[in-house]
Amino acid sequence: MKYCGNCGEPVSIRVPADDNRARHVCDACDTIHYVNPKIVAGCIPEYDGKILLCRRAIEPRYGRWTLPAGFMERGESTVEAAVRETWEEARAAVEVDSLFSLFSLPHISQVYIMFRVRLLRNEYAPGPESLEVALFREEDIPWSEFAFPVIRRTMECYLDDKRNDRFQVHVGDVLERIGRGSHGISPGERL
Amino acid sequence: MKYCGNCGEPVSIRVPADDNRARHVCDACDTIHYVNPKIVAGCIPEYDGKILLCRRAIEPRYGRWTLPAGFMERGESTVEAAVRETWEEARAAVEVDSLFSLFSLPHISQVYIMFRVRLLRNEYAPGPESLEVALFREEDIPWSEFAFPVIRRTMECYLDDKRNDRFQVHVGDVLERIGRGSHGISPGERL
Repeated sequence: MKYCGNCGEPVSIRVPADDNRARHVCDACDTIHYVNPKIVAGCIPEYDGKILLCRRAIEPRYGRWTLPAGFMERGESTVEAAVRETWEEARAAVEVDSLFSLFSLPHISQVYIMFRVRLLRNEYAPGPESLEVALFREEDIPWSEFAFPVIRRTMECYLDDKRNDRFQVHVGDVLERIGRGSHGISPGERL
Repeated sequence: MKYCGNCGEPVSIRVPADDNRARHVCDACDTIHYVNPKIVAGCIPEYDGKILLCRRAIEPRYGRWTLPAGFMERGESTVEAAVRETWEEARAAVEVDSLFSLFSLPHISQVYIMFRVRLLRNEYAPGPESLEVALFREEDIPWSEFAFPVIRRTMECYLDDKRNDRFQVHVGDVLERIGRGSHGISPGERL
């Protein structure tokens, strides 16, 4: 941010009065521009024991597999955002079972909120942001071709819970950037 | 938003190509300015069976009681934000037990993420945004003086769970604005 969205004058970066963090501040009109983390909401859709994944038709990570998920919009709930993204990316109608995970990615200021959902019918198709959508049996999941560490981690937790026949709500941090071959998770993973 | 933060020219509101929502778009430099919901993270601090509440020293709802909570900042996790806010508003050091609630407020594009926490010591004090901080027994909770419907709803769920000796993760929407005497909650409250 270089200019004030309110008056168009240049902004400076400084700690406002009564604050303790540097912000973009307009010295012309006194507007403080707060920038906050973004929520990515999505689903883990299951049908007949298989998981629905999408292959990305957009950057970043074009061609990689992911769960249907995307940025939450203003005016919607987290559940609505997750269901909408699943329709947009996978043309899949789902029923939400429960919250599955709340993963923070502080290095990129994102919070992933993922829900366990059931695919209502064996019907799905790639939306404009997907090259391909498919149901995967556990043994066929493309572990090495996931788009993001947080998606891989979500799938690991999900399949662990499924094996133990006990779904929990997972809370933790996924700290690594993409493309580094591994991913980190904080000690407090399962609060 | 009236001007582009990137180049300072006036923005227009329209649906960008490959999108389905109106955004603030700069026709001079082609920047699309996305505005997303904000996360409020906070704690339900318990000590010796009592709940720690703060009386607000700031608007909105100056003088009303609330749980320690505030806007999540960039570069932190949801847990870090909740613990930081509890320190800033109540000078209370806490240990996090579990995620308690994920409430969406779509009418104001906020998502409240609240954690069950234990106050480590019987020590607390008002921070700059609080007039007063106090531990409340259940029978003394100031129900009619809560700052926000979502805080009242969180406390109702918390005390219900406590009575049933079974803490759940609550997911739902709190739809009403402040100052309307009641609050709504969506059917899918406890997913």
